[in-house]
Order: sequence, then structure tokens, then C-alpha cells
Amino acid sequence: MGTRLLRFEYDRQECWGIYEEDLRLIEGTFPTLRSILTDGHSQITRAKTEGIIISMEEITLLSPITHDGNIYCQGTNYAEHREEAGFTQQKPAYNLLFMKSPSTLSAANTNIICPQDVQLLDYEIELGLVLKQDITEETNITTQNIGDYIGGLVIANDVSARDIQIVEQQWFKGKSYRTFCPTGPYLYLLEQDEIHYLNDLELILRVNDEVRQHSFSDHLLFKPTDTLTEMSTIFDLRIGDLILTGTPGGVCLRLNKDILEKMIDINTTYEEKINYFVDTQKENGYLLPGDIIELEIRSRDHYIDLGKQRSTVVQSISVNS
Amino acid sequence: MGTRLLRFEYDRQECWGIYEEDLRLIEGTFPTLRSILTDGHSQITRAKTEGIIISMEEITLLSPITHDGNIYCQGTNYAEHREEAGFTQQKPAYNLLFMKSPSTLSAANTNIICPQDVQLLDYEIELGLVLKQDITEETNITTQNIGDYIGGLVIANDVSARDIQIVEQQWFKGKSYRTFCPTGPYLYLLEQDEIHYLNDLELILRVNDEVRQHSFSDHLLFKPTDTLTEMSTIFDLRIGDLILTGTPGGVCLRLNKDILEKMIDINTTYEEKINYFVDTQKENGYLLPGDIIELEIRSRDHYIDLGKQRSTVVQSISVNS
Repeated sequence: MGTRLLRFEYDRQECWGIYEEDLRLIEGTFPTLRSILTDGHSQITRAKTEGIIISMEEITLLSPITHDGNIYCQGTNYAEHREEAGFTQQKPAYNLLFMKSPSTLSAANTNIICPQDVQLLDYEIELGLVLKQDITEETNITTQNIGDYIGGLVIANDVSARDIQIVEQQWFKGKSYRTFCPTGPYLYLLEQDEIHYLNDLELILRVNDEVRQHSFSDHLLFKPTDTLTEMSTIFDLRIGDLILTGTPGGVCLRLNKDILEKMIDINTTYEEKINYFVDTQKENGYLLPGDIIELEIRSRDHYIDLGKQRSTVVQSISVNS
Repeated sequence: MGTRLLRFEYDRQECWGIYEEDLRLIEGTFPTLRSILTDGHSQITRAKTEGIIISMEEITLLSPITHDGNIYCQGTNYAEHREEAGFTQQKPAYNLLFMKSPSTLSAANTNIICPQDVQLLDYEIELGLVLKQDITEETNITTQNIGDYIGGLVIANDVSARDIQIVEQQWFKGKSYRTFCPTGPYLYLLEQDEIHYLNDLELILRVNDEVRQHSFSDHLLFKPTDTLTEMSTIFDLRIGDLILTGTPGGVCLRLNKDILEKMIDINTTYEEKINYFVDTQKENGYLLPGDIIELEIRSRDHYIDLGKQRSTVVQSISVNS
């Protein structure tokens, strides 16, 4: 059984803990996920038997992923989501990659703040992979060695402002607002013999108790082995970096050829594009203030359980208004 | 006069130095740009008079920007470049943002490695802004207070694999290969009374001695004040982060409506898109192995000089070939 690693505020300090039957405090100072994954092995092990037991009521949960890491994302990596996003269902010829800003990271039980200028707020449940070893050169990642690189799994919500994302075409901004990446509740650190569970996880996202997304990680078009191998040929991955593997079908976004052509038309103004696009989307059940989003990921046999994330959508109040 | 901050290998260690009439070593250990900008003020000052003088021949130059920072980029932010990229010349309604991976960072005098599968390698001279203060909430950045946030200026080349960037549509991957962001030779740390020079810089890029790009920073459509203000409403900026402000006209890329429509056509295969796109571009003077790219940025009055960057293009040799 792997280790459920939590990060939280306790006694006005940022701390790490592990959760088995109880929550136990990890001794030592680890300012970042990278630092505890690099230097904290003995402290994590010791905490399992000797860690002080603290109550969940005494802590304020934080994201187990810290801001020093990078968030690398895959897009359109499930067939059902490809279709709703205006593509063919087939595995594409290329692995679509982009980044989210690290300040999107937030705890699994906090509010998602909808910016004032955003009209189409959408959810995306994703399986997050966390690196436990740097990859700094072209590396062939296989089912045999992937356990040397992927240290942990985490639930993430790749929250997206669709009006910004689709109209501005580059996805980074619309996915990079603060609070747009709730992660956790904890990082599940895999045992070496558990890595095969990567392809056996069930993902469920509910909005106000209604199931909106439900899929399995073996539906991923580009598998983690493919993706890590490709990334290794392009850029470095570092301990503590987060890879979001893409979302299954069931988001609010619906794209088609007409919409996509309108978005690249230079004779249509930005305001006209926004209005046109919002008009095509408004019946799709986008998120509203007060909506509660719950995300769960676990293995089919329930042996691996990444916990439950529960966020509430709130409207931003601008300091300048 | 500001301070020219260099990072380099010397005596098998990563060091920092300042360059005035001579190169002088900065005492102390600063593993990152963020650490020297946060804690190194007195050591930098002391180095100006007391630093050991070392010879440029004894060092191996490194990028003054370190991998822990993020690279936030603006796209299509000069009128002339907008036109060649298939847009109208007017200032757009939105500030196009994306990221490059931090492992693109390389020294100003090293090789740009063209990946094996890339056919269209292009250059982009850009003025880089480096943060000296965190911005973690909505902040109104004006010409009066921008000097509190922008600590330094640097030359950057936002090298781009156009076939990957344009065909795959999200720009991150095509701009994130290792060595795709030569920066420096040094970071110019501004004095408080020099911040007005932000709008008075001349940018020149040459390929094999031929001027390809030549413009001025007052042509920027979204000014650094606009951009920092907008970014502050979306995500956090941290000390040592790098903002690339966009490239002027003169790159090899030429886009138009026909090309852009072909790229989003779901009935055209990836291979067909690549072949079509490469065919439209091949006479445009894209970079080839052996090409030498020189970049210079300085103020019109030559008071501020960011130095000279000189890279050579080389072909990658795959370890798997």
C-alpha cells in the first residue's frame, strides 16, 4: 500500500503529513514537494510509526503540489473529449501539450474563483502524475521503467475559462487563473509494484451530485510511457513537476468546424467572437457560483484511492470595482 | 549606470559576476537568479570594488536566467509581426500569452540545436523583463511604479520550430525544445532612474551578417505596464521570472487565411498539414545548420547596452539513430 502524503497549515506553519488510520506529522522542514521527494524518505518512513498524531480539524489543507514545480498538460487525450472539442475521435498524430501557471494550484477543498470577465467556466477531471526523478535527456520510458520516474498520483481539476481559452486560441491564459488547479486532497506515493495501476483507474466528476464525467485511465490515447518518452526528447522534467494527462468526455465545452473557423476569422472583432461563442455554449451547463464539484479517482478494485476533491465555485470581487 | 550581472562556470563551480571594465567575481553561494536578486544586494555592491578580477577566458558563460523561474511570453505584440503572422496590424483586443519550458534557457554564445524532426527553425529577438519583486495579487502597474517590479533587462531569442508550432496549434511544444531560449550575455540590472529606457530600446537581429529584424521597444502594442497589470489579475509573478515581450517583424514565418484554415481542417491528416505548411514556407530563409544568429539590444543613445548574443545552429543527432 502506498503513502498518502498531505500538505497543510498547522500551528501557523506549512507542514507535511501522512494519512493512514490517523494523520501523522512528518518531522523536518521541506519547503517544496521537490525537497521532500528528494530528501524526505527517512522522515516519511519514520512518521508512519513515530509521527505525532494530529486531528484533521486542526489543519488547513494545502495543495500537495508546490509552486516551484511546473504543470505540463496534455490536451484532447480521450476519444470522447476529442469529439466534443471538434476533432475526430481517433488517436491524433501528435500529443497536444501546453502549460498552466503554477499559481493555479490550490487545495482540494477550497473555492474556485470565477474571474469577473469570465462567462464560461468549465471543469476537467484529470489524473496527475508527479515526477520523482529528473529526466534531462532523451529517455525511452517503458512499462518496465516508468516506476523509476513516476513517484505519485493526484487528482487535479484543470479548470478552464472557455471564452478566454477558445477565443484567444492559445490555451495558457484561460487555464491559468489563480485557483484553476485544485489538486489532491493528497499525493498518493506509489509503491514500486503498484505502477501497473496507472492503466486501471476510474475517474468520476460530479457537479451538484450529477455525474458529468466518468471514464477510465486505460482510455488515455497517449499513454504515460508515450508522453514521458516524447517530453524527454523536448524538455527537462524535474522532481515535483506535475503532468496532467488530459480530461475524458463530459465537459461543458462543445466545439465544431463553424465555431473554430469563426475564431480564426480576422474580419470578426474580439467582442463579436466572444458573443458568438458564448451564444453557442450557454445551454451546456457551465459552472455557476454556488456549484459544488466533486472529483474522485480510484482503481477498479478500490486498492488505490486518490481521495475526494470538493470545490465550490464563487464569483470574484475585483479590488478595482 | 546599471549593473551587468553574469552567470558562468568558473573553477568547476557555478558563479555570478559583474562586468564593468573587468569581470569581477561575486562572493557567496546563490544557486538561482531568485536567490541572488533576493539576498545578494550587498554582495553585488561589494563585488564592484572588492571582487576578484577574473579573465573572460577562464569562464564558461551560462544563462543569467535560471531554471527555477518561469518564462511567460507575449505573442504578436508588434504590428509588423502581426501582419506576417496572418493578423491585422492593429493592436489586438487581447494580449496573447503562452509559456516556454524553462529548459529552453541557454547561454548567449552556445549552439541552438535543431531537433531531427524539425524542418522550419525560426528566430525571434525579444526584450526580456526580469521580475525583482513578487506580484501575487491584482496590481495596477504604471509608469510611476513599474521600476519597483522590473529589476532587469535581457536579450532573448524565442527560437521556434514553426512546423510543430503552427501545425499543432498550441505554441508551447514548438517553442520548448532544449536550447530554444538563448538569454544574455548578461542580465542588465536597472537603476531606479533608468526605467524609462524600457520604451527606448533598439532591437537588431542578424543571420550571417544580414539584418533580418530591426525595431524599437516603443513599438510594443501592449506595453510592459499593461502586460504586468493584466498578468497580476490572472496569476502570480515571482522574483526571477522572465517575461518575453514579443518579437518585431522580420521572422521567416509567413501565415495567411488559407494556411490557418488548412491547419484546423479535420479532414486533412497531420502529415498532409506538415507537407502543405512546409511547402508554403520553404523559400522564406529558415535557419540551417551552420547559420550564425547575432542579437543586440541597446538604447537609442547607447547609454543602456544589453550586449551581444551570438548563437550557431547545429543539427541534433538522436541517441536512438
